[in-house]
Amino acid sequence: MKIGVVTGSVWATRKAACLAGQTFLVVRSGQEELVAADQVGAGVGDRVLLATGSPAARYCMEAPVDAAVVAILDPEEGYVGR
Amino acid sequence: MKIGVVTGSVWATRKAACLAGQTFLVVRSGQEELVAADQVGAGVGDRVLLATGSPAARYCMEAPVDAAVVAILDPEEGYVGR
Amino acid sequence: MKIGVVTGSVWATRKAACLAGQTFLVVRSGQEELVAADQVGAGVGDRVLLATGSPAARYCMEAPVDAAVVAILDPEEGYVGR
Amino acid sequence: MKIGVVTGSVWATRKAACLAGQTFLVVRSGQEELVAADQVGAGVGDRVLLATGSPAARYCMEAPVDAAVVAILDPEEGYVGR
Amino acid sequence: MKIGVVTGSVWATRKAACLAGQTFLVVRSGQEELVAADQVGAGVGDRVLLATGSPAARYCMEAPVDAAVVAILDPEEGYVGR
Repeated sequence: MKIGVVTGSVWATRKAACLAGQTFLVVRSGQEELVAADQVGAGVGDRVLLATGSPAARYCMEAPVDAAVVAILDPEEGYVGR
Repeated sequence: MKIGVVTGSVWATRKAACLAGQTFLVVRSGQEELVAADQVGAGVGDRVLLATGSPAARYCMEAPVDAAVVAILDPEEGYVGR
Repeated sequence: MKIGVVTGSVWATRKAACLAGQTFLVVRSGQEELVAADQVGAGVGDRVLLATGSPAARYCMEAPVDAAVVAILDPEEGYVGR
Repeated sequence: MKIGVVTGSVWATRKAACLAGQTFLVVRSGQEELVAADQVGAGVGDRVLLATGSPAARYCMEAPVDAAVVAILDPEEGYVGR
Repeated sequence: MKIGVVTGSVWATRKAACLAGQTFLVVRSGQEELVAADQVGAGVGDRVLLATGSPAARYCMEAPVDAAVVAILDPEEGYVGR
């Protein structure tokens, strides 16, 4: 899994019907920026753990997503940059 | 998922039979250019959300595709480049 | 999916039994060179659409392949390099 | 699979319920740092073999993880850097 | 699929139980070095075809592996570097 920091969110009125109600967060992981479904309740600034690919979709009830926030890392993890 | 901008489309007369009727859009995401199946109705210039891998194929009824447009992002998302 | 150009083919006498009879093409996509199963009938110089990962395997009857040619792009697509 | 060296672990109080009790190790593989579920009992400094994607999730009873430690490489493998 | 050259093997006494008896080869593919399960009987110096991801796991009876040697390329393939 990747570690990233939530930097924002995206909204889409026109989308696959099965994505209705799904929150999408923008997450920066190293030099990469990606969008992940969130069902854990993460917010901007949180350091999160991302699952990607089919495991992420399965976690989101087989919605067409390929990345999901699966955990919010504890701040005492030695991360002082936020 | 990746965020990209639709830059065009591709056509193929000779293809897997199960791809008949499927629209394929060219999407630029950062430095990368890829082709994604579209069932949302995106057009050139739209900023879209892409799902990749098996979740994209499942969304396209198990067609042999590995990328799909699953949402068109709202323009008020702070994107001013198009 | 990726767009690539067929540059050759590979042959293997010793291989997984389930790959018998499968054609493998070498495809160049940008800076990357990969090998893809072909069931569409592509040849050297054709510009093709590749599906990767599990969707490619499913298309090839669950053979152990992770890339497959799923379409030959029409030449009128504005591609003049070949 | 990738070879990596365990450099630490991460903890998360808020996470997907199905991840309860799962150990997550930070593993450095070349220039890349990733987080992998561990059910083999690896520790800091161990050189490990990582499986990624759906095979890793299946190994972890379909938990939403995309990387797992599946083996600890024997030290006599000629690795003298640790 | 990727083409690579077998450069060695790795051994692990402590591993997932379902990996017992599985041979793991180190394969160099371009700048990348990865470890692949082998059931074809490849040896050091062989030029091989690798399948990755879920198709590789399925080929290995759903073992937690994400890369497998599925073919040994014929030497007459124009490869003179080994």
